[in-house]
Amino acid sequence: MLPRYAYLGPAGTFTEAALRQVAGPDEATYLPQADVVAALDAVRSGDADYAVVAIENSVEGAVTAVLDTLATGEPLVLLREMLVQVSFTLAARGGTELADVGRVAAHPHAWAQCRGWLRENLPGAVHVPSTSNTASASQLAGSDELPFDAALVPPPAVSHYGLQALAHDVADNGGAVTRFVLIGHPGFVPAPTGADKTSLMVHLPDNEAGALLTMLEQFATRGVNLSRIESRPIGDELGRYSFSIDAEGHIAEARMGEALMGLRRVCPVVRFLGSYPRADAAPNEVRLNTSAAAYEDARSWVEKLRSGAAG
Amino acid sequence: MLPRYAYLGPAGTFTEAALRQVAGPDEATYLPQADVVAALDAVRSGDADYAVVAIENSVEGAVTAVLDTLATGEPLVLLREMLVQVSFTLAARGGTELADVGRVAAHPHAWAQCRGWLRENLPGAVHVPSTSNTASASQLAGSDELPFDAALVPPPAVSHYGLQALAHDVADNGGAVTRFVLIGHPGFVPAPTGADKTSLMVHLPDNEAGALLTMLEQFATRGVNLSRIESRPIGDELGRYSFSIDAEGHIAEARMGEALMGLRRVCPVVRFLGSYPRADAAPNEVRLNTSAAAYEDARSWVEKLRSGAAG
Amino acid sequence: MLPRYAYLGPAGTFTEAALRQVAGPDEATYLPQADVVAALDAVRSGDADYAVVAIENSVEGAVTAVLDTLATGEPLVLLREMLVQVSFTLAARGGTELADVGRVAAHPHAWAQCRGWLRENLPGAVHVPSTSNTASASQLAGSDELPFDAALVPPPAVSHYGLQALAHDVADNGGAVTRFVLIGHPGFVPAPTGADKTSLMVHLPDNEAGALLTMLEQFATRGVNLSRIESRPIGDELGRYSFSIDAEGHIAEARMGEALMGLRRVCPVVRFLGSYPRADAAPNEVRLNTSAAAYEDARSWVEKLRSGAAG
Amino acid sequence: MLPRYAYLGPAGTFTEAALRQVAGPDEATYLPQADVVAALDAVRSGDADYAVVAIENSVEGAVTAVLDTLATGEPLVLLREMLVQVSFTLAARGGTELADVGRVAAHPHAWAQCRGWLRENLPGAVHVPSTSNTASASQLAGSDELPFDAALVPPPAVSHYGLQALAHDVADNGGAVTRFVLIGHPGFVPAPTGADKTSLMVHLPDNEAGALLTMLEQFATRGVNLSRIESRPIGDELGRYSFSIDAEGHIAEARMGEALMGLRRVCPVVRFLGSYPRADAAPNEVRLNTSAAAYEDARSWVEKLRSGAAG
Repeated sequence: MLPRYAYLGPAGTFTEAALRQVAGPDEATYLPQADVVAALDAVRSGDADYAVVAIENSVEGAVTAVLDTLATGEPLVLLREMLVQVSFTLAARGGTELADVGRVAAHPHAWAQCRGWLRENLPGAVHVPSTSNTASASQLAGSDELPFDAALVPPPAVSHYGLQALAHDVADNGGAVTRFVLIGHPGFVPAPTGADKTSLMVHLPDNEAGALLTMLEQFATRGVNLSRIESRPIGDELGRYSFSIDAEGHIAEARMGEALMGLRRVCPVVRFLGSYPRADAAPNEVRLNTSAAAYEDARSWVEKLRSGAAG
Repeated sequence: MLPRYAYLGPAGTFTEAALRQVAGPDEATYLPQADVVAALDAVRSGDADYAVVAIENSVEGAVTAVLDTLATGEPLVLLREMLVQVSFTLAARGGTELADVGRVAAHPHAWAQCRGWLRENLPGAVHVPSTSNTASASQLAGSDELPFDAALVPPPAVSHYGLQALAHDVADNGGAVTRFVLIGHPGFVPAPTGADKTSLMVHLPDNEAGALLTMLEQFATRGVNLSRIESRPIGDELGRYSFSIDAEGHIAEARMGEALMGLRRVCPVVRFLGSYPRADAAPNEVRLNTSAAAYEDARSWVEKLRSGAAG
Repeated sequence: MLPRYAYLGPAGTFTEAALRQVAGPDEATYLPQADVVAALDAVRSGDADYAVVAIENSVEGAVTAVLDTLATGEPLVLLREMLVQVSFTLAARGGTELADVGRVAAHPHAWAQCRGWLRENLPGAVHVPSTSNTASASQLAGSDELPFDAALVPPPAVSHYGLQALAHDVADNGGAVTRFVLIGHPGFVPAPTGADKTSLMVHLPDNEAGALLTMLEQFATRGVNLSRIESRPIGDELGRYSFSIDAEGHIAEARMGEALMGLRRVCPVVRFLGSYPRADAAPNEVRLNTSAAAYEDARSWVEKLRSGAAG
Repeated sequence: MLPRYAYLGPAGTFTEAALRQVAGPDEATYLPQADVVAALDAVRSGDADYAVVAIENSVEGAVTAVLDTLATGEPLVLLREMLVQVSFTLAARGGTELADVGRVAAHPHAWAQCRGWLRENLPGAVHVPSTSNTASASQLAGSDELPFDAALVPPPAVSHYGLQALAHDVADNGGAVTRFVLIGHPGFVPAPTGADKTSLMVHLPDNEAGALLTMLEQFATRGVNLSRIESRPIGDELGRYSFSIDAEGHIAEARMGEALMGLRRVCPVVRFLGSYPRADAAPNEVRLNTSAAAYEDARSWVEKLRSGAAG
């Protein structure tokens, strides 16, 4: 049986582009889902083996839902990250010209990312909010009576749905990239590559600024840099937070292991969400005194002292 | 002329309920907007005097868009915060019974908050994603041919649109509250009440864990607690962050003033977004050695030493 | 052969009283020395097996010389600490009365500790500085022509030298205690008792306040309290310091081992000077999250994660 | 009346050399004292206007006595620091040759500093401890019957007492320098020069490592470097410490003022011991973000925000 991947569909989404980096349609069963929570639930329920979801800076919806879903319930882990260049095509039915466009369907996130371009190139255009840019593409392909003339859609959706491109690379910000992750069941940890990330979810011991400092010092003292830290409300009570963290390095490394031990001791809740290769393959910066060799030297020095050697 | 308030409309939204806490419909001109960014833009352009927007834990969409919009562009400030209890009514046209409901319209955030209730009470219900719960209410009121039978809507929308309530207080989590803020132009700072917040947006000096610690120490050293800290990507480059912060206290207070001075010195960008009363009116905890009196004692002590007094 | 102990002599010193806590005169060979450096040198040269020296708050001279001597050269370690109650007897030759006393011999440290008493009880007394209070006792016993009439001496010296006590318990500060240590060669570490100290000498990575903080955080992050920290100039260059530190706990304990590993990584020089029982036998305070159990739980948790367990 | 200076005498001491840097014998009344505590007491009692005492790395005795004496009692302040190059002359009566020397008088500190030289050049020499190297010089000049043949004395003492130099620059460590300070009554603070020190004595809030960190962060957060930090026992109870600190900068500077305010708030006792020019005149390193300009910018920024300006 081919491995089954749940992802935010339908065909043509940026998430699908991320999934293609992991496994081509011939090597895998693609299971499109209505939203990211459903994609994760599919893995938990056994309907899928893996999920591919956006984890940061998405134009396709609630990344916070991913973080919150991973934070509780049956444990899942991140296995790999993938980057996808994000830009839109303004697409319409065949025969439409740019000058004809008065109403544009777009997910509010997509609209926000293209606001400047639209103001300049389609000054009077009215925003018709949609819940999915790819769904708008599909509607353009299928129905005559639509409340919009064109839509901002992911580039792959244009040919997939037989649409006409009115403008390519529509985006106020040329280099926008979305980060996706491959998610699966615990059971093994990808081998360290020297360019890895470790994702965590932690609760603070209490709500003071001091508690956040105490938590961060667990990383700083061991020379572990953070590449992302994001607070998330815990449950519904305002004012209590968990922190979603990406740290540079792999749990197999001594400095990361010691930092995790520190978190485990000082934080009431720590959830390990995986160590996995970074998409950009940029080697982790390791200061001399936090290298594997420095840790090994320190460990063996203390061992020797414990048995009475001169120190 | 009545003061003009831009807010996320249409009538019947939770945001409208927050606005009513500030000014009743008789005392103000209500200007409903399609999204929160449009509400803020209306203040910047002069079309509105104030905006009311959700700032945390919203079920009506992108709070991050509020943070990002405040973070750049023409300065705006927070003037007040309001809390609104959030629960949904499952509503339909007159004559519908719960047993008839097969398809339910809901904003994906609302669906997520009611998932458990729906699984139990409407086991086979299909989710029809909408971009606005209140818009679904309006559609139920107006059109016969709809791709859904019922919708999760804010309670005030039921009577406003002449719908029928099939279930009240639909929410997996009984006490959910959303935090809203009143936003306006700089020019004055609300007087300190002893139960205040100060909102800030800061960039870190660089990307190391050490930089985040340095920033947080500006607060901790002066005894200022943080009630919220959230990282936001800066522009589109992955891996660079700004921090959106709510600190307990008022800029008029000595400890907050000194903490802000510290941030101004060590962070490349600091944007002050206002000092304003907390909605819960819970007095700020002030440790003895960071009270106004302790600061005043310390200030006058140093003044005396500078002119030669014994210390 | 009896074990040989070098100590600051002659007979009757407070150091001898400390030595008696370790080994009585029947069980050991007592080797009195002219100063503490000579006592340590005797161990290094093999002339003695152990040395007993004051390490803190001494009235008998340069404790800093002990710290400096341990800091460089052939490694020595602390094996035990002893406390000795310090007060003086004002002693003279038989037949002398308090009213006859015009000139009082005393080591400047002893004089300083008794200044108040002397002002009150011997208002006109002149200080005759001596290099050793016990030497003054010996001189009183042996010579007729002395530039002083009485001396402040350790209580045991009175009978040892056949003197007459004019006043007992002379001290401005009733409870003065001096801390002594037993010093020997490395080779074994006394077993942990739950009430231990670990002594260290470290150099800072550089001279900034930040470097001192970095060093101290190695302890704080692991929940290790310091009971003493003292800066000592490194060599003769003004402005460069080493730190002499007593930390609460034993190198065999996980939290101390990890703190030492941290020091080894971040400090250019770390010298381990021993883990040994505290004289006061007061159990080390261990916060819940730095207990041996907390460390063991954290270690095994990380081990399990590394082999793929859910975290 | 000429200003009166109390100092550690007699004539010919290194302290006298330090005093000469402040005021020549024609411009001042020199009041030699038996020890440093007496020198400070002379100022407190009004017998002297100023005192000159060693404050660090002294070969002439208890610098800790200076720190302890300044730490309590009537306030005194440091007004200036002076450096004196320290080396010894091995001196004897006229007619003595190096080969004749069997017994050498020396203060134990001086002996310790010359131990290596003596071992090499006078292998069999016996140490005769003295309480003052200059006193030994005076004895050599006056008496025939002495228990020593030569003495380690400060160079100026040779001609002052009409002795013969057997060896110059006797010291194991060529560049030894002792730091002296000029001490007087509070009443004015020397003007800032850009190369200043501020001396302080502080007690910690409690005995934990965390308390020391909290204290040091008051400096680090404001960008103030420390050039010296030394723990001193408080009174006689073992285990309680005060800290004697030299910080780089002047109390008139904004960053130092704010650091002192912080100490005043968090430490139970802070004694200001003066801001004064550094002897080496090396300009204080000031990071860009802690310059006077950075502080002034931050102060005026917060002022503007408080009156409603955009931030």
